[in-house]
Amino acid sequence: MRSFLLSLLLVAGVLLQGRSQQFSGAVMVLHGGAGNILPSEFNPAQEATYREALTLALRTGYERLKAGASSVEAVQAAIHVLEDNPLFNAGKGSVFTHDGKNEMDAAIMDGSTLKAGAVADVSRIRNPIDGAIAVMQRSRHVMLVGPGAEAFAGKAGVTLVDPSYFFTEKRWQELQRALARDSLDALKGDSSSAVLPPVEHPELMFGTVGAVALDQQGHLAAGTSTGGITDKMNGRVGDSPIIGAGTYADDATCGISCTGWGEYFMRTVAAKTAADLIRFKGWTVGQAGHALIDSIIPALGGDGGMILLDARGNGCLVFDTPGMFRGWVSRDGKISVLMYR
Amino acid sequence: MRSFLLSLLLVAGVLLQGRSQQFSGAVMVLHGGAGNILPSEFNPAQEATYREALTLALRTGYERLKAGASSVEAVQAAIHVLEDNPLFNAGKGSVFTHDGKNEMDAAIMDGSTLKAGAVADVSRIRNPIDGAIAVMQRSRHVMLVGPGAEAFAGKAGVTLVDPSYFFTEKRWQELQRALARDSLDALKGDSSSAVLPPVEHPELMFGTVGAVALDQQGHLAAGTSTGGITDKMNGRVGDSPIIGAGTYADDATCGISCTGWGEYFMRTVAAKTAADLIRFKGWTVGQAGHALIDSIIPALGGDGGMILLDARGNGCLVFDTPGMFRGWVSRDGKISVLMYR
Repeated sequence: MRSFLLSLLLVAGVLLQGRSQQFSGAVMVLHGGAGNILPSEFNPAQEATYREALTLALRTGYERLKAGASSVEAVQAAIHVLEDNPLFNAGKGSVFTHDGKNEMDAAIMDGSTLKAGAVADVSRIRNPIDGAIAVMQRSRHVMLVGPGAEAFAGKAGVTLVDPSYFFTEKRWQELQRALARDSLDALKGDSSSAVLPPVEHPELMFGTVGAVALDQQGHLAAGTSTGGITDKMNGRVGDSPIIGAGTYADDATCGISCTGWGEYFMRTVAAKTAADLIRFKGWTVGQAGHALIDSIIPALGGDGGMILLDARGNGCLVFDTPGMFRGWVSRDGKISVLMYR
Repeated sequence: MRSFLLSLLLVAGVLLQGRSQQFSGAVMVLHGGAGNILPSEFNPAQEATYREALTLALRTGYERLKAGASSVEAVQAAIHVLEDNPLFNAGKGSVFTHDGKNEMDAAIMDGSTLKAGAVADVSRIRNPIDGAIAVMQRSRHVMLVGPGAEAFAGKAGVTLVDPSYFFTEKRWQELQRALARDSLDALKGDSSSAVLPPVEHPELMFGTVGAVALDQQGHLAAGTSTGGITDKMNGRVGDSPIIGAGTYADDATCGISCTGWGEYFMRTVAAKTAADLIRFKGWTVGQAGHALIDSIIPALGGDGGMILLDARGNGCLVFDTPGMFRGWVSRDGKISVLMYR
C-alpha cells in the first residue's frame, strides 16, 4: 500500500514539473542553498557575483581532483570557497540565531570507508567543514558539538576565530526583520512565545552549502556546511551535520548533500533514504533524488533541494523551491552553474 | 556485488550463532544496554535488581498502554523508570566524560506522524527523554543541544536539576579506571594524546536504555536515552539522539532503538537502514535486525544491539555483545526479561 502511494506521489511529483538537472560524466556537484531564488530578486551584477563564486568553488575543487587529491580534499577545498564568501549561509555569512549568535553545523563523509565527521553548534571554527574533517580523521567520534567541538578542533590545528568574525550586516538585518515579525505575531495573541519557538520565515531559511566529489581513485565524498536558519533557537541542530539526513556518501550508492527546511530532512532521514532506494531498489540517482524532493519530503510539508553523484559520474541536482544555487564539473573540466529553474 | 557480499555476510552472521529473540503479539520491547553482560559478572542479588528494574519499566509502560495512553506516553513512562534507576547509563547513573561531566542524549520518534525530537549534550535535564519529547511537541525543531536545549526544556516545563544530581560513585570510579588506562597508554609512547581522543574502553561503553511501544490505536513510538560512553570527549554526541541512527519509528515499517558503539550506528545510519530493508525489500523485523547487527555493523568493526517492533506486534531483540538487558510485554501482559545470551 505504502509502495503504491509512493508510486502515485512520484507520478504526481513529475507532473508538478520536477526541477532538476541530470547528467553523466561529472566529477563534482555543488550547491549554495535552495530558496526563494528568483530572477526578480537579483540584478545582473548580483547574479554575476553568485555565478562567479559558484564557478570558483567548482574550479577549485576540480583543480584538486585533477592534481590527484582525494574526494574529501576536493570537497573541503570547494566548501572553503563558499564558507569564506559572505554571500552564502555558511562560515562567514552565516545567519543569526534568535539570540543574535552564529551557530554553525557541518559534516563530511568518506564514501570509500564510510567514515564520517560532524560538528554542530560551533561559533569559533572559522571553516566548520575543517572541524568536521578533523573529527573524522583525528578522533574516534563522529559528532562533536558546542565548546567541546571547538576545543578539540583547536587542539587538532583547525583555525579558531573570535565569534565576531562571523558578523555580517546583511544577516543581522535579516534577523531584525525576523524578530520584528515575531513580535507582530506575538501581538496577534500568542502569549506563549516564551516557550514556543520563533515563527517560520521561509524566505530566510535556506543557503546551506554542500559538495560531492568523485576522485581519480573512484571514491566519493560528500560535505555540507551551514549557519542554519535565521532566528533559530539557540542550540538548534539541523540536518546538515546529521549523517544520513543532510549528508551521506557511500561508493556503492552515491554521495549526497541536502539543503532546505532541515527538520523535514531529519524526519525523513533524507540522504540515507535516497541511498537506500539506489541500493535496495536499484534506482538511479535521479529517481532517488526526485522521490525525496518531489514526494517524500513534501508529503510531510517540507521543501528544499538535494545534490547526488554516484561513483560512475552520474549526477542529479533537484529542488522544489523557486531556485537553488548549483553547479557541476564534468571530467573534462567543463563547469555548469545555475540559479533558477 | 554489494548485494552478493551482503548475502554472504548474512549467512556468515547466522552461522556465528545470532543472538536474538523473535516473537509476535508484543506491545512493547525494551533494552537497558548491550555490553559485557555475563553470568560471571553478577551475583544472584545483583541479577535480581536488574531483572526487577527491567520488569518494572515494562510493567509501567504496559499499564499506560492498557489505560489507552499513546505509544509516546508509554515509551516515556518506561524510560523514566530506567533513567531514574542508577543501574542504567541514562539519566541518574549516566557515565562521565573525559573531563568528569555527565552529558546526556535522548530522542523520541512518533511513528504515526514521523515527528521527532532530540536533545544532546545536556547536563541539567533530570529526564532527558522529557527534553526530547518537549522538543518534538513544543518546538518546530527536531534537535536541540547544550545550554540551548536546557533553556528550552526549562521554559517548556521540563524538570531541571543541578548537574550534581547525576553524580554516582560507581560511574565516577569507572571514569577513574578509564583515565588510569589512558595515562598508561600515553606512557607507552603516544605523545599526541592532547589531540587524540581517549582510548577505547569496550567494557565500559554500553548501557543506553530504549523502548518501542505499540498503542491501542496501532501507532508505534520509539525512544532512547543515554549517558553515552565513559571517558568520551566533551561535546561528543552518539547515535541515540540521531533520528535514523539510534532511534527511528514509522508505523509503516517499525520502531527501533539501538545500543552499542554509537559511532558505528551513526556511520551505518543503522535504524533507518533496518527500516528501509523492511520497506524497500519486504524483510521482517528479524531479518532487518540481524542484517544490521550480524553483518552491516560488524563489517565496519562495531558492535551492539537493537530492538525492533512493527505495527502488527512482531518484535526482535538482537545483539552481538556477550549480553543485553532486554525484555518485552505481550498483549496479554506477559512480561519476559533477559540479560544473557
